[in-house]
Parts: sequence; structure tokens; C-alpha cells
Amino acid sequence: MRQYKYVLDEKDLPTHWYNIVADMKEPPPPYRHPVTLDLLKPEDLAPVFPQALIEQEASRERWIEIPDEVLDVLKMWRPSPLYRAYRWEKALDTPARIYYKWEGVSPPGSHKPNTAVAQAYYAKKEGLVGFATETGAGQWGSALCFATNLFGLKCKVFMVTISYHQKPYRRIAMETWGGEVVPSPSTETKVGRDILARDPETTGSLGIAISEALEYALTHEGYKYSLGSVVNFVLLHQTVIGLEARKQMEMAGDYPDIIIGCAGGGSNAAGLIYPFLKDRLTGEKPNLRAIFVESTACPSMTRGIYAYDWGDTAKTGPVVKMHTVGHSFIPAPVHAGGLRYHGMAPTICALLNQGEVEARAYHQNAVLEAAEGFARAEGFIVAPETAHAVRAAYDEAMACRESGESKVILFNASGHGHFDLGAYDAFHRRELPDYELEDERIREALKDLPRI
Amino acid sequence: MRQYKYVLDEKDLPTHWYNIVADMKEPPPPYRHPVTLDLLKPEDLAPVFPQALIEQEASRERWIEIPDEVLDVLKMWRPSPLYRAYRWEKALDTPARIYYKWEGVSPPGSHKPNTAVAQAYYAKKEGLVGFATETGAGQWGSALCFATNLFGLKCKVFMVTISYHQKPYRRIAMETWGGEVVPSPSTETKVGRDILARDPETTGSLGIAISEALEYALTHEGYKYSLGSVVNFVLLHQTVIGLEARKQMEMAGDYPDIIIGCAGGGSNAAGLIYPFLKDRLTGEKPNLRAIFVESTACPSMTRGIYAYDWGDTAKTGPVVKMHTVGHSFIPAPVHAGGLRYHGMAPTICALLNQGEVEARAYHQNAVLEAAEGFARAEGFIVAPETAHAVRAAYDEAMACRESGESKVILFNASGHGHFDLGAYDAFHRRELPDYELEDERIREALKDLPRI
Repeated sequence: MRQYKYVLDEKDLPTHWYNIVADMKEPPPPYRHPVTLDLLKPEDLAPVFPQALIEQEASRERWIEIPDEVLDVLKMWRPSPLYRAYRWEKALDTPARIYYKWEGVSPPGSHKPNTAVAQAYYAKKEGLVGFATETGAGQWGSALCFATNLFGLKCKVFMVTISYHQKPYRRIAMETWGGEVVPSPSTETKVGRDILARDPETTGSLGIAISEALEYALTHEGYKYSLGSVVNFVLLHQTVIGLEARKQMEMAGDYPDIIIGCAGGGSNAAGLIYPFLKDRLTGEKPNLRAIFVESTACPSMTRGIYAYDWGDTAKTGPVVKMHTVGHSFIPAPVHAGGLRYHGMAPTICALLNQGEVEARAYHQNAVLEAAEGFARAEGFIVAPETAHAVRAAYDEAMACRESGESKVILFNASGHGHFDLGAYDAFHRRELPDYELEDERIREALKDLPRI
Repeated sequence: MRQYKYVLDEKDLPTHWYNIVADMKEPPPPYRHPVTLDLLKPEDLAPVFPQALIEQEASRERWIEIPDEVLDVLKMWRPSPLYRAYRWEKALDTPARIYYKWEGVSPPGSHKPNTAVAQAYYAKKEGLVGFATETGAGQWGSALCFATNLFGLKCKVFMVTISYHQKPYRRIAMETWGGEVVPSPSTETKVGRDILARDPETTGSLGIAISEALEYALTHEGYKYSLGSVVNFVLLHQTVIGLEARKQMEMAGDYPDIIIGCAGGGSNAAGLIYPFLKDRLTGEKPNLRAIFVESTACPSMTRGIYAYDWGDTAKTGPVVKMHTVGHSFIPAPVHAGGLRYHGMAPTICALLNQGEVEARAYHQNAVLEAAEGFARAEGFIVAPETAHAVRAAYDEAMACRESGESKVILFNASGHGHFDLGAYDAFHRRELPDYELEDERIREALKDLPRI
């Protein structure tokens, strides 16, 4: 009988994270200071991030040991299963062999806790009281509340006001894990109070929430700030996904021709892709294709430019060389809230610029259509973000049907959609808009880049 | 390092279901006809259930082979993991060793598909077009839509109107798997139309939805009716849970002293408990304790009587000897919608009557309090139904703390609470009512029992 999934024991968990910078032809250009635009010094980040994470951010070491205390928590759901999508292959009538890594088994339901747990561990070790962070729809906030609680830390979450009211379930989950969630803009920070004074009816934005979380961390004794994607150390922590998947693909007796992940800041995709991409960078698998999939609503890699830009709307965070549509760009309200970041992880952008990886973008009806087919075949209802990876896998599988090739396709099923079923409902009712984005809007947002 | 979870390979799936009737001192008394009250003949059930299930319902065979086609689908998520709750033990400061079986990993998020898949398989084999069923909050309906879709069958779900509007996410999940969901009472059945004519504003009830589903199945060519709990064949299909757990407890080097499950109709609890209870019934483990946990809002085992009663409100289904609070009993609107059935599985009731198992009931604040502690320690946010099992495990663990005994406690974590977070929110806000149930209300509902 067929084997559908490949499971590992806890003892098979990776012992080290993989740092792709060690194998890149050229590492990404250094960060710069948000005000002076000079090269950023590690001490500039000290008030913001735990020291161990600042060191990981700059590290060129290929392998970084995972602390036992972190592994001990990852075992709550890891190793996650790798599936062979036999039923979906049959439904698509494709000769492709499709595999997916299923990260929806974590308690918060996505890959996000892979880094949240590591960050909480280092914060605890440094003697911090807690973290402040922002969250849009709540995926990242719930992962951080889950993780901080396990290490006895506090978690202050600034949740974009419109999501706070429209998506109460994620808020309740954060509170169940002991987090303190406030709608942003709030009266708890100066930046929040100023904005409320100017516009009492505002529904908030991720840019404002980031600014509030940063201010809260900098003005509260024992607090630092936590970030859920984009930066090197976050992508590093996510490589457990790909390291496990390598062992599982070996069990299946296959090796991927094409690896796919959806990308907002890029962490889940990099987490699966980097441990395989190593083989391409070192010349072992020169034809391995890696595809980062973004939303057409926020097409940093496919329609943005590769330039230095601020990482946040309020220009308080580091200036980073990346593919960007501009830090002031406001994307259309697509359901994939996690794919609405104006930039992209700097290592991914450098690799894209070096021609080592590919990028593509999809409209939301195309991705929901693929995700619905996937749900009918494989059972799992994935998040709207994840649905972008599903669509790319679908297109590659259909290309195999055309060509008759039996390529091996592997994608990251980064999270479940249990809190996002409204997107599926809108799709069923044919009420899901595909927003067209004019070049002019991107050009406008790109006018305010730093002069470096 | 500690091992938190015990995982099995697909090849370790049970090949046979376990039928407890073979090992009972005395099997449960036979079913009776809803109108004549005579002993029910298999042919009476033929228009309602697939033939293979009618045979399983009456079977005295100890082991019944699981068809390969059913196993093939169960592999989408089974074997499910068994966890050692180290973190929760520490939080409770108990010497007890607590284990739980985690059924929340199935695509619909609970144990329900274990039987839905088997029922869909037999329906397909018999050449049926589809199933009709009822659902309250949507747990069962979503499992059946998931299963029927995989076998190319249709699924018509009558969903209690108030849930249809208040809990749209379950409805959307059912539609995503291709199910057709209508609010009940509907205009699609005579019983629905009659009720709507009398009371156009009614929000429906499970009793009405059952009657509509039965009528729909009996009046539509190629349709039969599907039931998600109570009857023998459903409990039989759920024994994969306990059969897996036996292997996993062996891997852990432990054997349970106390096994616990929440019970509405009783299927998830029996699924975990029966394969272990076999050891007690055959004299190998005479001291094994099995606890079925119900809601104080619908206390069939703890405050009802053991008597013949109709299985459904409209008196159209079989008359069954069981612990009942009366088929006309209307329970308070507790969040654990799955624990609001007026009766209980006849095998469980016979075992309770024979002194082989125990029963207890909890108010919802007590169960949510335990579930919140569990979520903080173990990460997983369980369904309000499951929270009843969590509370009983908590009480047994606390008893161990008192006595200093290190008993082994095993409970079934039957499903996640992702669609029921409103219960947690109400608990956080101290707005969760504990309904007191007067004896008089039960006495009243018990007046209309059949005279057998």
C-alpha cells in the first residue's frame, strides 16, 4: 500500500540551524542606520533585539547550534510531517511527483513558532521581562504569545485595529496563551496617541503597529522587540523545516527538482528552500529551481526594484538592500495579510539578484482556486498565504502534464486557514476581488528611497 | 532528553476494529421499533443505513477487518500522535504521569472522520449517491463532507439555523469540501416546512435537523442517512484511537491506571477506552478505571435513568436502552455543543450499568479553566467538548498530588477548539454561565418514555 506521509522521531530533529550566508557567492550588503544611513553597528541594534540574535544576524558560520531548551519546545510539534500528494496528483492528472511539508500541526497553526520559540529562549536567557511586537491578522502575534508563555515571559501585542475587531479568534488565542493584546493605534504609546489625536476613527496599519511596538520596547524596562520575518536570524531559525524535509525526501527516495514557498517577508519559504539550495550554491545540484511566490497586491520581487529602503513605514528600523515597492506603499486588502510587506528578506533578494532563485506573483482568485482543489484532494484547508505556494505547485504540475515530464515538486504548506475561512467563502460566492495595481502607484511609493 | 510524543508509521495502523460486545458479560439489550416497540429487525434499518453498517451494528465478532480503502484514507492523518504531558504535569505539580492522544491533527480537526470515512466507503461500495445528515455546531457535518468528497459522494447537511448563522466558519469548511449545507428547519423537507409554517422565526434544534436529514434520505433516490455517534458501528470505527494508543503506551513503557474521554454520544471516549477496557473485561487488568465525562447541562449518565427511550426527538429512530434524560429534554446552550445529546451509546450505558466504567459531569467554567491551563502548558487549544476530559484528567492528577501516588492517566484530546474560541473569550471575560439544572426539568422530560 502507498505511503502518504513521512514522519520522523524527535531524536531526528536537526541539531543545528543552517546559515545560507556561508554558502552565498556574495552575502547581502550590510544594513544601514535609519537616520544617518551609515553602516549599522551591532550596538545600534542592542536596545532593540536580544544580543544573541544580533550575533546570529551578522554571523557567517554555516551551522549554528540549536540550544537544547529550544529543541525541547520544538518537540511539542516537530518534526512536522512531509506528505506525498498522491490524491492531488491524481486530481490534476499530472506525472509530477508532488510533496509538501505540513507546518499547520504547530499549536499556533503555522511555521511562525519555529523562530518565536528561539527568540523567547534568548530573551529569557538575557534576563528580559518580555517582548513587544506587532501583528496584522494575528499569525505572528499568536506564535510569539505561545512561545513567550512557555518561557515565563510577557508578550505585548499591538494588533492592527481593524483586525482586532474583525478577527477576534486570533486575539482570543493570544489571550489564552497569556498575551496582552491591544488594538493599534493605542493610547499606550506616544506615536499611537498622536495618531489617534489626528484621526480618532483610524483602523490602523501594520506600519503604525510596528512603530508602537518599537516605542513600547524601548520605553519599558526589560522589554525588547520581536520580529517574525525578513531578517537573517528569523530565516535561520526556520531552516529546521528544510533540514527535516531533506531527511524525509531521502526516506521517500526522491530529491526535488522544484522547491516552492509563499513569501511575505520570506521566512517560511527560505526555511524550506535554503537547506536544499545549499546543494545548488555548492555546485552539487546546479539545476535545482527555487520559487518564491508573492501576492500581486504587493509585488516587491516581481515589480519592485532592488535598492536600499527602510524596513518599516515610520523609518525607525534599519535600512536594508532589498526588493521593495517602497516603505510607504499600501497594498490592497487581500486576504493573505502575511504577504503585504513592502520589502523582502535581504538574503532572498541577494539570491534573486544573483540569479540563484526565481520569483512570481499571483492574484488571489487563482490561489484560492488551487487551494480549494488541494483541500478537496488532500483534506487540509491552508491559509490564504500558503495558497500562493499551492498555486505555484499547481502550475508546475500542469506544466509537467503538458510536457509529460515527471518532475519532483516540493512546497511548504506553511499554515492552516482555520482563522481565514472568510477568504474561501468570498471565493465560493465569487466576491473575491483581484486588485489591479497601476505602475504609477509603485513609482509614487518608490520616490522616497534613501539616497545611498 | 525527554521524549514528548510517540509517533507510529502508517504501517503500524490497526488492521481490524475492536468490537467490545464480544467481551461484554452481557451485550446491550436489543433495539426496538420506534412505532410498534417490537424488537427491531435488520430490514427495518435497511432504508436508513448502508447494509454493511447494519451488519456491523449487530455483530458479535471481536475483530472486524478494516477495508484497505478505508485505511488508505485514514493515512491522511493517522496514526495520530500520543503525547506525554510533561509540561502540564509540572504546572500541576503532580506525581501523576499524564498522557493524551491528539485527534486534532485530522483535516476536520477531530476524531469524527474515523467513522465518517468508513461510512462513506460502505456507502460508495453499495452504490449510493450520497448521505444526508444533521449537524449542530458543525463538527460532525464537516467530517462527513470531508469523507464523502474523497469517495465522490454527495453530502447534504442540515445545520441548526442558529449555528448556521453564528458559526459560519464550519459551514464554509463543509462547502470547501464540496458539501451542501442548508439551515434547518429548511423548506426542503415536509417536517421543515411544517415547522417554519408554525414558527417562521425558529432558530432550529438538533432534533428537527435529524428529522429533516432522515426525511431527505428516505425521499431521495440513492441517499441514506449518516450518524456520527451513539450506535455500535460508530464506536467500532473509533477504536483505531485506542488500538494505536496501546502501541504508543507500550513505546512509552507505561500502562494507564485511568482512561478518560468526554462523552456526548460517547464515540471518541469509547474509541480510546474500549481497546484498553478489553483487559479489564477479560480479567487481565481488573483495576483499570475508565471515566466517561459529560456536561452538567445534559447529564444522561449522572442524573438520567437507564431505560428504553427514542434516540431522536421526533421519535422516528430506533428505541434504545440507554441512560437518558428524555428525548424531549432541551439542554442549556453550553458551548460544548457536542455534549448536548439526551442519551448515550448503548454499549457505554450497559457497561456503566454493569459497574465496569464510571461517569461524571462538569460545569463549563470548570472545564474551560482546566483547558486554559492545558493550553498554556501543552500549547494546544482544545474544543469545549474535549475540555471536559481535560478537567477530569486535572482532577485525577490533583488527587495524585494529594495522595502522593504516581498514577498513569490517559485521556483523549478529541479535537481542537479553533472554531470555538468564543467559549474561551467568554471564560476570560467571566461571562460564561454555569447553568443549574433542576430535577423537575429532568423528571418532566422523562414522563414520555416508551412503555417497555
